[in-house]
Amino acid sequence: MTVTHEQTAARGTTGEPLAALFDPLSVAVVGASENPRKWGYWLAHGALAGAARRPVYLVNRRGGDLLGSRAWPSLGDLPDAPELVVVSTPPGEVRREVERGLAAGARCFVVITAGVGEPASPRAELELAELIRSAGARLLGPNCMGVVDHAAALELCWGAVSAGQVGLVSQSGNLGLEIARLLGRAGQGLSRLVSLGNQRDIDAAEALTSLVEHEPTRVIAAYIEDFRDGRRLMAALAAARAAGKPVLLLAPGRSAAAERAARSHTGALVSPLEIVDTAVAEAGALRLNTAGELADTAVMLLAPGVLPAPGTAVPGALAAPGVTAPGVTVPGVTVPGMHAAPEADEACGRGGCRVAVVADGGGQGVLASGSLAAAGLSVPALRDATAARLRGILPAAAGVTNPVDLAGAGEADINSYASVVSTLLTGPDADAVLLSGYFGDYADSSPELAEAEAAVASRLADAAADAGRPVVVHSMATTETPALRVLRSRGVPVFDRIEHATAAIGNAARWTALSSAEPPRSAVAPPTGDGSYQRTRELLAGYGLSFPAAAFVADADAAAAAAAGIGYPVVLKAMGLAHKTEAGGVALNLGDERALLAALDGMRRRTGSAVFAVEAMLRRPGSVELIMGIRQDASFGPVAMAGFGGITAELLADTAIGLAPLTLERARQMLRSLRQAPLLTGWRGAEAIDLDAAAAALVAIARAGAEHPEYSELEVNPVLAHPGGAIALDAHGVLAEGTADIESTEEDHDA
Amino acid sequence: MTVTHEQTAARGTTGEPLAALFDPLSVAVVGASENPRKWGYWLAHGALAGAARRPVYLVNRRGGDLLGSRAWPSLGDLPDAPELVVVSTPPGEVRREVERGLAAGARCFVVITAGVGEPASPRAELELAELIRSAGARLLGPNCMGVVDHAAALELCWGAVSAGQVGLVSQSGNLGLEIARLLGRAGQGLSRLVSLGNQRDIDAAEALTSLVEHEPTRVIAAYIEDFRDGRRLMAALAAARAAGKPVLLLAPGRSAAAERAARSHTGALVSPLEIVDTAVAEAGALRLNTAGELADTAVMLLAPGVLPAPGTAVPGALAAPGVTAPGVTVPGVTVPGMHAAPEADEACGRGGCRVAVVADGGGQGVLASGSLAAAGLSVPALRDATAARLRGILPAAAGVTNPVDLAGAGEADINSYASVVSTLLTGPDADAVLLSGYFGDYADSSPELAEAEAAVASRLADAAADAGRPVVVHSMATTETPALRVLRSRGVPVFDRIEHATAAIGNAARWTALSSAEPPRSAVAPPTGDGSYQRTRELLAGYGLSFPAAAFVADADAAAAAAAGIGYPVVLKAMGLAHKTEAGGVALNLGDERALLAALDGMRRRTGSAVFAVEAMLRRPGSVELIMGIRQDASFGPVAMAGFGGITAELLADTAIGLAPLTLERARQMLRSLRQAPLLTGWRGAEAIDLDAAAAALVAIARAGAEHPEYSELEVNPVLAHPGGAIALDAHGVLAEGTADIESTEEDHDA
Repeated sequence: MTVTHEQTAARGTTGEPLAALFDPLSVAVVGASENPRKWGYWLAHGALAGAARRPVYLVNRRGGDLLGSRAWPSLGDLPDAPELVVVSTPPGEVRREVERGLAAGARCFVVITAGVGEPASPRAELELAELIRSAGARLLGPNCMGVVDHAAALELCWGAVSAGQVGLVSQSGNLGLEIARLLGRAGQGLSRLVSLGNQRDIDAAEALTSLVEHEPTRVIAAYIEDFRDGRRLMAALAAARAAGKPVLLLAPGRSAAAERAARSHTGALVSPLEIVDTAVAEAGALRLNTAGELADTAVMLLAPGVLPAPGTAVPGALAAPGVTAPGVTVPGVTVPGMHAAPEADEACGRGGCRVAVVADGGGQGVLASGSLAAAGLSVPALRDATAARLRGILPAAAGVTNPVDLAGAGEADINSYASVVSTLLTGPDADAVLLSGYFGDYADSSPELAEAEAAVASRLADAAADAGRPVVVHSMATTETPALRVLRSRGVPVFDRIEHATAAIGNAARWTALSSAEPPRSAVAPPTGDGSYQRTRELLAGYGLSFPAAAFVADADAAAAAAAGIGYPVVLKAMGLAHKTEAGGVALNLGDERALLAALDGMRRRTGSAVFAVEAMLRRPGSVELIMGIRQDASFGPVAMAGFGGITAELLADTAIGLAPLTLERARQMLRSLRQAPLLTGWRGAEAIDLDAAAAALVAIARAGAEHPEYSELEVNPVLAHPGGAIALDAHGVLAEGTADIESTEEDHDA
Repeated sequence: MTVTHEQTAARGTTGEPLAALFDPLSVAVVGASENPRKWGYWLAHGALAGAARRPVYLVNRRGGDLLGSRAWPSLGDLPDAPELVVVSTPPGEVRREVERGLAAGARCFVVITAGVGEPASPRAELELAELIRSAGARLLGPNCMGVVDHAAALELCWGAVSAGQVGLVSQSGNLGLEIARLLGRAGQGLSRLVSLGNQRDIDAAEALTSLVEHEPTRVIAAYIEDFRDGRRLMAALAAARAAGKPVLLLAPGRSAAAERAARSHTGALVSPLEIVDTAVAEAGALRLNTAGELADTAVMLLAPGVLPAPGTAVPGALAAPGVTAPGVTVPGVTVPGMHAAPEADEACGRGGCRVAVVADGGGQGVLASGSLAAAGLSVPALRDATAARLRGILPAAAGVTNPVDLAGAGEADINSYASVVSTLLTGPDADAVLLSGYFGDYADSSPELAEAEAAVASRLADAAADAGRPVVVHSMATTETPALRVLRSRGVPVFDRIEHATAAIGNAARWTALSSAEPPRSAVAPPTGDGSYQRTRELLAGYGLSFPAAAFVADADAAAAAAAGIGYPVVLKAMGLAHKTEAGGVALNLGDERALLAALDGMRRRTGSAVFAVEAMLRRPGSVELIMGIRQDASFGPVAMAGFGGITAELLADTAIGLAPLTLERARQMLRSLRQAPLLTGWRGAEAIDLDAAAAALVAIARAGAEHPEYSELEVNPVLAHPGGAIALDAHGVLAEGTADIESTEEDHDA
């Protein structure tokens, strides 16, 4: 089994673009060692584990034998080209080894070494990447923890990583290991691991994309600290969504310390968390906070029935009927300590994922229900027919509401667990069943029950498979009993804390909802605007935003003529001012020509303006003032914003954001997600405003922003939303730095 | 070792009031069995384990031998009085056994049986309790899981419960077991367990009180579903606070399903969660949501240095300097999924508990910091001197900011962990150190390091003990290595998930802050009011609330005279109307006598009122309108409320509550906790209102409510808070049902 240079060269251009990384024709380990405390040992050991699939060349300057295999003194001595070269040497030697590898025909390098050069420098890393890329080869790292692909028998990392269905991309090696261990404990594991290191060539977006087409990967997990090229990352997430593969994104919540650490760790540039959350949710992915939460969610998503069947449009079991795909990011608020659950129960009718709880202690049922509600899930009351069926199975003392309280039925007959869970899984009441409490532990306290308990576990797994709905088990057991082993081997999620179970179900339901949302359209950007009020207004009007009638005039005659055409009362605004209200450049409610001309005269003297806008003065009964706008984010491009006028948007941070452009539905969701949204829909008997018209205004502004990146900001304040429509009373644009031809930047916050 | 009836009788009236329950002179087990699947087995087995301390009488109708001990056919056959009798028989036999026990001289009964009577009924339970109490004896249960007191060698429950320093009172047996197991896994356990069952005699408050004086109990845990007699429970919590013992209260978050389940479980009456949270926090206790969170928090509180030394005023290590005791309940909002951390980092300067993070992977440091911030803790940047000291210990690649990133230093020299942690524990930067990542796992991947790792664990524990500050370890280890065993045996909290570690630290810091708050004063309730505007106003004025000058008049002459005395402009209000604004019973801003008399004339005709209030018309520039009031809660008595006027209190649920009466500081905290509080302190350059005056108004209203339970509600809307003071423009009282002499209930929401 030798590989020719020609084979190696040909491989790089066909099939999987990163085949040389994930399933190389041959591997060389530079810095191989026999010392288990050294990286060179684990790399050599892992590479040799794949020796049946590909030639493995260990390189150690002393030559001789290593781990029962021949060692070569140098990459230059190899009998054939090594397609993949793993480098774990001192930083000063990395470049020399890469040069030798390239000379030997290598197509890909994995550099474990934490730095490059003597002394190590970012510049040396960049130059190394350039050298590799210019030879048509690829680089993972430096400063990474390696790569694993179980289906390709490739294990180039520290320690051992259990195999499973989760593909993992990590910007932190240790976290990758931690996730792998947590998955292993839960009976799952990794299909593929890519440790990104300093991302001098292969980056997060490319590694994620590689997992979309990777068949053994059913759930994608990623730890990402920076979102420098947010839109490219979003494209990778969108591809995963299209392929029906959930992406679980581990990213730290916002805190000064986390940002400080992320900066010092990899020089990451952190986008405001709210924008990251919005972008991730819109791409159908979940952002999670800890390795444990990620592992739990992955296990839950991989439970039979939860993911949609590949290649079909059939939704997973947790797609509750009538669920409206949120897309809406609700930036969470965690107040330390006291958690008041939202009114999730009442969301039942609105289609939230419904969970039936079975507990063998009343208290556990209570806490499970509370925890589910806190996770945004619905715990609906059972239908009478279902309750009657349960009453036929259970003793009189049992509670046959939801949560079901077995009240000792399990102790009396362990088969009760399976009968009750089956009844609920096959009935119309719930999309999933959560069993909480003692089950899984009988084998420990009563060893003679071990076999019966394992048999019940099998029945539970069968019932879930038959119903195509998940059963989730929270067990008090402190050891891995036969019953729990059966459950895990059948893919039934088992958790040792109720909060892990409920968070995992909640996250899986959230993903199901997100993944069914309409993907956002992508934006194009043709012509150019400038910063003036007049042109900003024209631009937005061109996208369909309504404004009051207006004319731009320079003298009294033109003003009077314009006002006569528009009809009194009118508004007069002086153009070309940075802060026109403060400068006395706005006059409202001018009722006749005399008032208009007097205002014009005074305004001209006060402001020195040469051009004035004469506009219709509007009054719309029952109207609500909204602020809408866009701003360009460095990582994610144009982001649309909506909020209420007045002080609340700022004082209460009551704003909604979404990546521009927006669909009409997304714009509606943004408006509905505002805390004061009841004001839009008929608060205390008022007439509801025309929500579609307000949403259409937001869509227009977002589209203008998306297609005109020359504006760093666009703001319309206020948009008057009323029962008959929505109309913009002002417009304000800020041109991005370096954009030419700025007439003036106006501050028209008050019309 | 026999006990006379006299000894038994004497015991009940001296020392620990529940001595017959927790350390009985003798025990009888009715329904003893040799079948390990029956309660009678575990009770007999547990009772016999204490046979060296007290006589144990097993009762089984067949007599003979049982578990190597003599069994008696009936309680009537015992040679001596059984001080404590445990009953586990069919429900129809319970009463007979109790009667026999009383006849034999028993002082206390623990009834495991789920019901009493044939058929079982609540009435039979009540009658049983009455029978027992009238004989001067006590009852735990029925429907409980028993009682454990390790120091007294008393174990009367299902299975085995590990011993430790946590005293547990539980309204759910299975949850009690789950908590005991979680503590056991963490190297802790229970000092005492009281399973409450149906609480027909001994209830939660009494059981909690018993733990306050119980010396082996250092942390009190409780699972409570109902808060029927909230004020009595609060007194027990206050006693625990006074004794320096944290109380961890496990109670489900609000959800319809949880309430449904709690009702069906024990017929519990659930107080609105917000009031429970406020009451619990004011009593210095923590409400937690799950068994896991409770166990983690208990372990953290029991770490050396965290609890104040008994009998001293020295605060625990987590009492950060300058911390203002909150007392303030912030009812948490958990939005499923995306957690945006609050600006906890920035709270550093405000005195939040400061944590230094040490991680052996950059990513783990990032996530730990984010998770700490989400738990309300501060992760401050390190001082230059500390950073310099760390730089001397660590390689160049390490991050010496907070979080500290060891960057491989641990692999190079495992002693680095101890050196770095010691440096931080002894420095001025942090109140606690969190070590996150690989430590604890070296023994597994490199068995030759096991001893060295355990030695480092000892050094970590020593360093924490010396510094009097806790070190907390989050370890990726999947097995219990020697190092982790050392840590746990020394009381160092070890967690397998970072979120468990950070939540535990956050909860311990929260308790430390709560426990240092000023305890609320207790209320007295002397005289009587009625529901009229005039008397409600007088009542509140008597407590120091300011009102505009007013006179109550019946005719035009009196009105004119009153207005002349008060000074124009005035307000005229018709008395005796349910909705006076709607009925045209309010006229504002009457500028002279003519206007006043015209208004009086019209108002008299419209409303038919016979009495009118003439009040000064106030204008206070820079004023903010607040709503303040109290209402009587069925469980917790008078609860004070404050919010902003207008629609926001209702629309945004922007209100603060506190148990009445209030201290001035607590009233200030309530106002400051409102989301719109910036409006009080000078929003956008406005003058700040007189917060002390507003708080004093709230104190006055709360005190009036606390001392006048004949009012089910008192509401003042608005209180005009301005830079120069605070004044009430109206007052509204609702008399509790059954209160006599109601003149009329007025709705004076708009002055």
